[in-house]
Amino acid sequence: MGINLNMGAEMKGNSIHHVSVNGSLYPSKTKSRRQRWEVKPSEMANNTLNPIRAIVDGMKLTPNPDKPMIALSIGDPTVFGNMPTDIAVLQAMKDAIDCQKYNGYAPSVGYLKSRQAVANFYTCPEAPLEAEDVILTSGCSQAIDLAISVLCNPGDNILVPCPGFSLYKTLAVSMGIEVKLYNLLPEKSWEVDLKHLESLIDERTSCLIVTNPSNPCGSVFSEEHLQKILKVASRHCIPILADEIYSNMVSCSCPSMASLSSDVPILSCGGLAKRWLVPGWRMGWILIHDRNDIFGSKIRQGLVKLSQRILGACSIIQGALESILNNTPQSFYNNTIHFLKTNSEICFSELCTVPGLNPIMPSGAMYLMVGIDMDRFPDFKSDVDFTERLVTEQSVFCLPASAFEYPNFFRIVVTVPEEMMVEACGRIKEFCERHYCSGSHDSNYLDQ
Amino acid sequence: MGINLNMGAEMKGNSIHHVSVNGSLYPSKTKSRRQRWEVKPSEMANNTLNPIRAIVDGMKLTPNPDKPMIALSIGDPTVFGNMPTDIAVLQAMKDAIDCQKYNGYAPSVGYLKSRQAVANFYTCPEAPLEAEDVILTSGCSQAIDLAISVLCNPGDNILVPCPGFSLYKTLAVSMGIEVKLYNLLPEKSWEVDLKHLESLIDERTSCLIVTNPSNPCGSVFSEEHLQKILKVASRHCIPILADEIYSNMVSCSCPSMASLSSDVPILSCGGLAKRWLVPGWRMGWILIHDRNDIFGSKIRQGLVKLSQRILGACSIIQGALESILNNTPQSFYNNTIHFLKTNSEICFSELCTVPGLNPIMPSGAMYLMVGIDMDRFPDFKSDVDFTERLVTEQSVFCLPASAFEYPNFFRIVVTVPEEMMVEACGRIKEFCERHYCSGSHDSNYLDQ
Repeated sequence: MGINLNMGAEMKGNSIHHVSVNGSLYPSKTKSRRQRWEVKPSEMANNTLNPIRAIVDGMKLTPNPDKPMIALSIGDPTVFGNMPTDIAVLQAMKDAIDCQKYNGYAPSVGYLKSRQAVANFYTCPEAPLEAEDVILTSGCSQAIDLAISVLCNPGDNILVPCPGFSLYKTLAVSMGIEVKLYNLLPEKSWEVDLKHLESLIDERTSCLIVTNPSNPCGSVFSEEHLQKILKVASRHCIPILADEIYSNMVSCSCPSMASLSSDVPILSCGGLAKRWLVPGWRMGWILIHDRNDIFGSKIRQGLVKLSQRILGACSIIQGALESILNNTPQSFYNNTIHFLKTNSEICFSELCTVPGLNPIMPSGAMYLMVGIDMDRFPDFKSDVDFTERLVTEQSVFCLPASAFEYPNFFRIVVTVPEEMMVEACGRIKEFCERHYCSGSHDSNYLDQ
Repeated sequence: MGINLNMGAEMKGNSIHHVSVNGSLYPSKTKSRRQRWEVKPSEMANNTLNPIRAIVDGMKLTPNPDKPMIALSIGDPTVFGNMPTDIAVLQAMKDAIDCQKYNGYAPSVGYLKSRQAVANFYTCPEAPLEAEDVILTSGCSQAIDLAISVLCNPGDNILVPCPGFSLYKTLAVSMGIEVKLYNLLPEKSWEVDLKHLESLIDERTSCLIVTNPSNPCGSVFSEEHLQKILKVASRHCIPILADEIYSNMVSCSCPSMASLSSDVPILSCGGLAKRWLVPGWRMGWILIHDRNDIFGSKIRQGLVKLSQRILGACSIIQGALESILNNTPQSFYNNTIHFLKTNSEICFSELCTVPGLNPIMPSGAMYLMVGIDMDRFPDFKSDVDFTERLVTEQSVFCLPASAFEYPNFFRIVVTVPEEMMVEACGRIKEFCERHYCSGSHDSNYLDQ
């Protein structure tokens, strides 16, 4: 069906209210209409980018056939089956199914009972919570989506950590919101470069995103440092989106931002995904902390309205939520933390001995970042190149931190079984020793 | 913290890279910054409206204390417990939990196995489907959201049935997309007014939404009528979003749009919600029908990209999906249809005898629309007024069809227990007989 500009065809194409176009009369409705099929994806679709996928899809990932693949790349603790959720969590789901009370539409913000359970779980004297302060969402991703959507207009900008989780940018850019990256300092356990952060703020800055504990770094801010971040936000009247999906998955103290904030209003995003090891279940929440009534009723109503677009989390999981939060034993959380800590220590201590690598010891979440002294690896052009070759030679896959906007690093996921971690670190060491160049211009460590 | 225009304050407020402003030098960065807290909800939040809620919240719903409340308003079949889902559906969920394979992140478009199961369930020779044609979503609402989001840009318009489900408008307007309402004809069993539909099309029209079977009408288009709708779409090169959430819930033939389309590409939106009676579970899908490659790879890729924003449906339900689709007995579907048909007949036959009311017999879904001859009810200003007083006097609540952009009608949900339907119809009859005015100017049927 090509374009036909013939007057006859145009006449046919107009609405039936046309009049003859062959004389001096024009059609009574001169609406143009499509003459041929041309269905293009929207700007939003075109602007929805996945940086991790973009990088990974461009890599040639062909493992060494002599070595079984070890993926240290996927931020999903369930992959190898070594980190099952607690039996109480599964039982809570089955009970919710059996009682047959949770099959209908929940309120768009979630069942009141479930919201109350989340409020009770996270409330503390410094940051009290009631059910009305909780909105349930389809995963923490939707919590982040709603938070950005309520705070930001197209043309606004949000401040996002670098290195940082790529979803913030994916969501923001898809909505015409600009992203400004503020630096984290590897030499200071990934603390925020506060001067750099402050220098980015302008009158269109509508949200500061703080990820604590951090993906991809596994770092945890001290109370003192959180206070400094809050001071910047307070000084410039910027609300905070606190991505706290890894909250409590720490081997150190980790206060919530809300518990420290005196005036800065905070939307804390969280969920079951990581701490309860069920990321596929899509059970998230927003906790609204607004002691000084800065959000007031308008932001809250905005969130409620937005929640009515696609009606949040599965009702079964909502029905199971109270039981999940109340009945999961403390030992389950402790065992998870202990395991992640042990794996991190194994990885860190091994990679510390590898020339050319600079691992940064994490204190939480499930990741460890490793710096690459690129000058010492003349065989590789970038962290992408480095990690691609690591797959080819050693069948070990780590995400290049370019995927998190931070070149010359790579990220290790520390949820894999211990023996796999040990094996992987050994292979990384072998790989680096093979390619390391101590400084002499024309020789490798092992001559070819 | 008020606004302080004092130069000193401005100087303080600028970034630390400023220089003295008291001389002739300007600050090296003259970024303004917020001097006080002013967090406003976004345009998107402000533009996300829920017409049903807006109308219902404005009604004074105080039932008659002498009569127990009968809600014929809620489009949720689970409310009264008389329409439980099948035991096979519940078992499939519990099996998915127990096997512990479905706790991790699914691909953003859904597990391949689950998509294949949906493809197998809906494929037919006229409209074949493969797994790659299926995208799983968090409920049919998210399917509709993704479909509109991929096809439409701000400033485009979509064609939406009137009366019709209000979510299309809620989603579209929140994204800056205009909605044009095309009329359905009650005297022709709610068929589309095709001339009116065609007259609305212009060069910014990017999608035609067809709801079949219909909410709120319960009508089902004949094959012949569907062909006529397709002709309009074809003539103007407009793709169709077919909301088929009530597909197969019919007491007559109901071919899918895709099975009849020769060239018009179709995004068919559906899910478990209604046919399997589990609307809270948020398990939906898009079926991409594009035999003439008009969507091509670009629209498909656009949908995949958009699906990466918040990662779709709960993994447990995805894991259960194949079993749900394959193991639910045909008798379950038949019993549901039989029950809805019986209730519709009871309601229709009773209301046919009520002066001033004009019920339109449905053939599918779970609704029945009733016309109100407003001239015969001088006590009432509108359908909103009528339904509000029906609650006050008779404790029966039906949604005024103004909530669906169609004044002078009200909608009855036919999922309620039969005895409740009988009781409700009796009370509606009593109510109408009380207020009916046969035409004489100054007397009611029953004088006060």
